[in-house]
Formats: sequence, structure tokens, C-alpha cells
Amino acid sequence: VADISVLIQSQSESPTKTVVKAREFDLVVDEPADLGGENEGPTPVEYLLAGFTGCLNVVGHLVANDLGFELRSIRFKATGPIDPAKLFGQETEQRPGFKNIDIQLSVDADADEATLQEWLTRVEARCPISDNISNFTPVSLNLHTSEQSVAA
Amino acid sequence: VADISVLIQSQSESPTKTVVKAREFDLVVDEPADLGGENEGPTPVEYLLAGFTGCLNVVGHLVANDLGFELRSIRFKATGPIDPAKLFGQETEQRPGFKNIDIQLSVDADADEATLQEWLTRVEARCPISDNISNFTPVSLNLHTSEQSVAA
Repeated sequence: VADISVLIQSQSESPTKTVVKAREFDLVVDEPADLGGENEGPTPVEYLLAGFTGCLNVVGHLVANDLGFELRSIRFKATGPIDPAKLFGQETEQRPGFKNIDIQLSVDADADEATLQEWLTRVEARCPISDNISNFTPVSLNLHTSEQSVAA
Repeated sequence: VADISVLIQSQSESPTKTVVKAREFDLVVDEPADLGGENEGPTPVEYLLAGFTGCLNVVGHLVANDLGFELRSIRFKATGPIDPAKLFGQETEQRPGFKNIDIQLSVDADADEATLQEWLTRVEARCPISDNISNFTPVSLNLHTSEQSVAA
């Protein structure tokens, strides 16, 4: 089976606002006023948590099907602490990202507790975003200046 | 400085669709038809890439300010390959998430090449999402069954 190639394209519209094109969908990322933005959309880290819960829902239903029980619904509460010191350029040993991510899943399903614990273990192991957050993922950032862009 | 506490809440609406509440914003996560969804919104992994580029924009402007140059705009193209085998429950040694993430940044700025390379290094080091993807982040998933939810 060939890899799925995921692609999005984005454009800065202000120092805090980014407009994103994901296939036919447009998304707006921004910061609230107290972080210098116009609050025209969720923050980057809210997008990360949103995608994470969406991922758990998809995988949750696939695994419930494998385990043979009906999964009627999941409610999620996803939280995490961020120390903004490094983001703002201060000298610190603290990491800039989430120190940890905690997700509470309230599950309505026809399954006993042991089955649901097995379900959760498999969901975590198969969820793409859980993998990318919990484990090392190589990231490459490649810079093109406007002159290069024109020449390309 | 106190940590920022980020919170979102989500609800499954179908096996592929999740509705997310991030403060006053509502987001829809879904899968395209060829992955079993109704295509009512971007996929979970598109949300991750969207947040990542939004994060780079915010941090990019903070760092440009520190380095004393004008950053007029950034365009982003973010891509990554995913092998869906593990997601779909097949026996495989492949990871379920992005194998790697590649982001092309086209920058329009009043800065020379050396300054922009220093800018990129600092942006990557200070961006919360870059940190959470590139490095290990503890994730805890905690299960509540509907009976527990009612009792709580």
C-alpha cells in the first residue's frame, strides 16, 4: 500500500494570523488579544489538540469494530500546560511546547471495562497524532527567500 | 510566569466526524469519502499541519522583531507521508503517524541570507508545535465509561 501524502498550504496575513488551505477547506489560525492577536480563530496549539481528538475518534471507531462492540459516542476534554517563556525569547531550560497532554475520554459503548481498556491501548498505538506527539518525528524546515521564489 | 493552560472539548458526531469547541470557536474534523467519512472538514493530520504553520508564523514574527528586520509575509507548504497500515489495524513495523514532516517557507523580508538562516534556527527552537512534534511529549489518555460520567 502506498503512503498517503498529506499537504496543506498557508499564508501569513498578520504577525499572528495565518490562513490555511487544506484541500477545499479554509482555516484561520490566530492568537487572542492578550497574546497580541485579533482572535479571528483558534490558536496553533488548539488546532493540535483538535486534530488529536478527531484522530482518536476515527481510530476509536475502527478499533471498536475490530473488538466487536458498538461505540455510540465519545466526548473528549483535552488539556495541556505551556510555559510561554521560551516562545517569548526568554532564557530558560523549559521547553516551548506542551509539557504534557492529558485527554479525558467519556465513552458510551456496549463493552465491559476490560474490553474498553484494551480498546484504549489499541487506539493509542494506532492513532497517527498520538504517535507523532509521543515519539520523535523528523521535521525539516526549508527556507526560500522572495528572490528564490521568483526565480523558481 | 504561570503556565498557560490550553483546553479544548470535542464530541464525536459520527465514526469519522468530530466537533471541537476551542473557546468560542467551533471546528469540524472529518475524513474524505475514500477514508469512510463525509468530508465535512479537514482531517486530523491536516489540522496538525495547519497548527504547525500558524505556530511558525507567530514565532517567526517574534524572532524577526528580536533580530530587527521587517518580515512582510511567509507562505508555507507543509507535507508529510503516512503509511495507513497500522491505522487500519494491519500487522506492520511502520509507525502510524507522519514518517516525517517537511515545511517549505517562502519568506518576504528585509534580511540577508545569513540573518534568515539564524532566524529559522531560532524559530524552530522556540515554536511550541515544532517542539512537541520533534521531541517526546508525555500523553495520558484517561477513560471514563458512561456510568462513571453519570456518577461524576
